[in-house]
Amino acid sequence: MASEFDLIRRYFTRPVQRAVLGVGDDCALWSPAAGMMQAISTDMLVEGRHFLAGTDAQKLGRKSLAVNLSDLAAMGADPRYALLAIALPSADEKWVEAFARGFFALADRHGVELIGGDTTCGPLNISITVIGEVSQAHALRRDAAKAGDEVWLSGATGSAALALAHQEGRTRLAGRDFEACFARLDDPEPRIALGARLRGIARAAIDISDGLLADLGHIAERSDVCIDLFADRLPVADALRNCPDAALRLACIAAGGDDYELAFTAPVDEHAAIDRIGVELGLALTVIGGVISGEPDVILRDAGGNRVKLDRSGFDHFGA
Amino acid sequence: MASEFDLIRRYFTRPVQRAVLGVGDDCALWSPAAGMMQAISTDMLVEGRHFLAGTDAQKLGRKSLAVNLSDLAAMGADPRYALLAIALPSADEKWVEAFARGFFALADRHGVELIGGDTTCGPLNISITVIGEVSQAHALRRDAAKAGDEVWLSGATGSAALALAHQEGRTRLAGRDFEACFARLDDPEPRIALGARLRGIARAAIDISDGLLADLGHIAERSDVCIDLFADRLPVADALRNCPDAALRLACIAAGGDDYELAFTAPVDEHAAIDRIGVELGLALTVIGGVISGEPDVILRDAGGNRVKLDRSGFDHFGA
Repeated sequence: MASEFDLIRRYFTRPVQRAVLGVGDDCALWSPAAGMMQAISTDMLVEGRHFLAGTDAQKLGRKSLAVNLSDLAAMGADPRYALLAIALPSADEKWVEAFARGFFALADRHGVELIGGDTTCGPLNISITVIGEVSQAHALRRDAAKAGDEVWLSGATGSAALALAHQEGRTRLAGRDFEACFARLDDPEPRIALGARLRGIARAAIDISDGLLADLGHIAERSDVCIDLFADRLPVADALRNCPDAALRLACIAAGGDDYELAFTAPVDEHAAIDRIGVELGLALTVIGGVISGEPDVILRDAGGNRVKLDRSGFDHFGA
Repeated sequence: MASEFDLIRRYFTRPVQRAVLGVGDDCALWSPAAGMMQAISTDMLVEGRHFLAGTDAQKLGRKSLAVNLSDLAAMGADPRYALLAIALPSADEKWVEAFARGFFALADRHGVELIGGDTTCGPLNISITVIGEVSQAHALRRDAAKAGDEVWLSGATGSAALALAHQEGRTRLAGRDFEACFARLDDPEPRIALGARLRGIARAAIDISDGLLADLGHIAERSDVCIDLFADRLPVADALRNCPDAALRLACIAAGGDDYELAFTAPVDEHAAIDRIGVELGLALTVIGGVISGEPDVILRDAGGNRVKLDRSGFDHFGA
């Protein structure tokens, strides 16, 4: 059976390009660009919690990195490096090879070097750390929203949650809707290019991993502002539009997680610039509400301006 | 029940001192010191593999960080930041509080700021990433050993492995020996001060986590040299000296893991300087062999110069 060291050497060790020292020493080493801040984030994915047992290893390799890169995107940072710590039930070489293929396909696309990690035996657990760079003046922090800002969303939310609802038997997807929703769930696209383009334009940003309302709640709390959303301005993907269950539809769009779109706030006078960015990237960017003064909260209103009641707690890993 | 966000806020969120932005945003941000390389390492600890179920949470919090800091020590880097990704079977607040206490006790002693992480539900798994700084000229890399160097070891190896042997019923420890061995196993001391003092003096360094021979084997391979060790020069802790089983004794000293001492190579003309460092730190530093030209290998010799046969594979997480 292949040993831990063999597997690392065979599938995860590549010559470094930008880093000074990669996999194979006590630490990896890199020289930061002069004057740039280093941005770092870590996400742990557990079998049975974040993905089903038996999930395709290649897809999993890609998604594990994608959800981490999404955090760099939400900070406006350029991705540079990744570390991969992984616990495997057994040294299944085919699985590791497929996982590495998925991981590096996305890493290469974003110029990310795998410079370190750890491999051990245990219940399947993937813990990735990503490092990026951003100038201090341009980092898109959660605490930077200001009253008067518009609130924007890239793409549309809810498709990944609708795929989950299908898996759990709460709705039935077929054909194109099935394809589209599971593509979003299994293969999210980190909005790296958007995050980079928003530097110097947007104020606060966050990626939608736990649900639109819950994640915007973090901006509201950290920025000490209230966020006013208009339900009829929330973009609706085709699969959601075709969903006959109106309550499920709204729950997916407003509180479903795993979409990895960016929500961000920006001054009104950046509106035209943001519209242009959307056109250039071929990515829908929609104003879904505004930032107002008041107690930190996220309020969803219907067309008449009345508050829509909805559980805004989003996804909590220890919740019911 | 406390939620994920509550637990993070309550036990792992502290105001940052050195970092620009800590826990609570998509990424943490820090400004590297001008001209310094950033060193990073990650270690994953799995229940049942790296520690027993029911291990005291405070000790575990300390040790989880210690084994990571040990990698920074082996690179000669000054510790700066840590990220903690943790999967917990349940949101057991008392456990988390004790774990955080152990973690921060060691972090504070080494000026380490916890700037990010992830908390999720799953089989107990602790994945820590540490970041340090070192100048490019002074990093203690595994590939820097040269023929003619002396090979040094801090402290003594084998006590942690002897504690494990006791746990598994392969030997019986009592009294002071029991205390000493379990202190090494549960509460290893990362040799941060030693690593820092060896900058500009030692060439290659590694921390002994998988066993002396196996870890020195990494230096041999990366530096393309042969390491010649003399069995009778290996330091022997009291508990090992009292062990009646000579084969177990040698196996613990030469191939036992989990000691987190530093092994390093240095030019002979640094011998006196290293002796002084040992005195100043109150830490035994012993020459245990030399670096010679030849195929990458680690050879252990008895007093007569004959090769001692021993499984040098050390600890492999997928091994038997």
